Amino acid sequence: MTITIRNVVDAIRSSVHSIANTVDGLEFGSPDMKVRGIATTFMATQQVIEQALSLDVNLLISHETSYYSHRTIDGLLIGDPVYANKTKRVQYSGLVIYRHHDYCHSAQPDPIMIGLLQDLKLEACVEEMLPTAAILRMPGEMRADEVAEYVKSKLAIPYVRLAGDPHMICRRIGILVGYRGGIANAIPLYRDKGVDLIIAGEGPEWETPEYVRDSVNHGIPKALVSIGHAESEEPGMRYLAEQLRRAYPSLPVHFIASNPVFQVL
Amino acid sequence: MTITIRNVVDAIRSSVHSIANTVDGLEFGSPDMKVRGIATTFMATQQVIEQALSLDVNLLISHETSYYSHRTIDGLLIGDPVYANKTKRVQYSGLVIYRHHDYCHSAQPDPIMIGLLQDLKLEACVEEMLPTAAILRMPGEMRADEVAEYVKSKLAIPYVRLAGDPHMICRRIGILVGYRGGIANAIPLYRDKGVDLIIAGEGPEWETPEYVRDSVNHGIPKALVSIGHAESEEPGMRYLAEQLRRAYPSLPVHFIASNPVFQVL
Repeated sequence: MTITIRNVVDAIRSSVHSIANTVDGLEFGSPDMKVRGIATTFMATQQVIEQALSLDVNLLISHETSYYSHRTIDGLLIGDPVYANKTKRVQYSGLVIYRHHDYCHSAQPDPIMIGLLQDLKLEACVEEMLPTAAILRMPGEMRADEVAEYVKSKLAIPYVRLAGDPHMICRRIGILVGYRGGIANAIPLYRDKGVDLIIAGEGPEWETPEYVRDSVNHGIPKALVSIGHAESEEPGMRYLAEQLRRAYPSLPVHFIASNPVFQVL
Repeated sequence: MTITIRNVVDAIRSSVHSIANTVDGLEFGSPDMKVRGIATTFMATQQVIEQALSLDVNLLISHETSYYSHRTIDGLLIGDPVYANKTKRVQYSGLVIYRHHDYCHSAQPDPIMIGLLQDLKLEACVEEMLPTAAILRMPGEMRADEVAEYVKSKLAIPYVRLAGDPHMICRRIGILVGYRGGIANAIPLYRDKGVDLIIAGEGPEWETPEYVRDSVNHGIPKALVSIGHAESEEPGMRYLAEQLRRAYPSLPVHFIASNPVFQVL
């Protein structure tokens, strides 16, 4: 039986109502092509694209766009050699790249959150699953710096960044993936859900971290572990590969990881 | 002679045409109060406020707002204990807090950029001063990782994050302060101004860093040193204190630094 790009895209979007003005869609290729194999990834960087080609798949499902900004910025990439080379390489190869972002996060539960909880081995601690956050009740008594080390170890990442009181005992923890680490998402978790610590992907540096610092200085201990945008969303794209493997047992399905983009000096 | 809050605000805004919809303004206090002393800072955190009070100044000029988001988010802080405590403390103390952001960055040259260049001891290397960036021609042959270590040492900060090719020789360097490290500002510097490396405050993690990684993988070596939002703007607020000291020799003028908000684990 022939499986087309359209079939796979329809399947991964099937649980979500139509989203207006979505960033999701085909960046390269045609929906009528036959799928020979699938890879999922956080972002279709040049390294990821080369790895997808070497795995001989022709559909790459990427959470973020290939072109370095959430929405297209008019004129920005015209005449840019990195853009020109990357585009030429993908077009020549015949690889189809599909961005799966809004429909991914809108599924309930969000597979990006599920993948992260799985990798953290904290699924059993989930007390409440909100549309944009998970609230966990921790079983034992872990200090904030111990939570940070635990996350670092479970995700096998080279560093995390900790704000707030490193020695406070964390009984309730909130999780915010991707760029949801800003104050608009954080305050409702600290204040209304009573979390002691938030594990976040990325967020503006003087929003939640400075709120947490002020809170500590008002005698209300709080903490924040910032793990990185890609680091918070890669596990979910690995989880998506597992789902696709079950849905299409006749197709090879891979997850392609990336190395951390930054080194800390 | 009496110097009022209004006098000082008018003076620091005097070189810039009126800005519509500005975030700048008084967060606490009245413009007619007499100024007893001034402190400048990156952000009026609780620690900074206490230090300003212990220095017995009554005007705190802060680059970012006291309340954790660039613009007010409707309803977010209602019932929040950190907000309530901080507001009560400042109101009770009589401290005036003025946010100096848009008018600060719109001065040409931007004092935030001048302060950073001074602390980096790179003023003599400036080849071109753009409204939102500085372009430097480096005198010797410095590798990207050496630039990173140089910046870290000159700013006395505990860590920087490096993306791209650590071993490339950097002859031209671009500087972007604050939250200007995104792709819309970075590509014109790499592509049109031919910079090898950008020193940036903060920017989205999968924009410029991933562009730089792709560029390296296309054989066009580039690098990025991300130093932190506060770290890139504090020197400019110290520089503003120097300017105010010269303008108001009769007043005590202080700069209040902050410790880094994150620790790396």
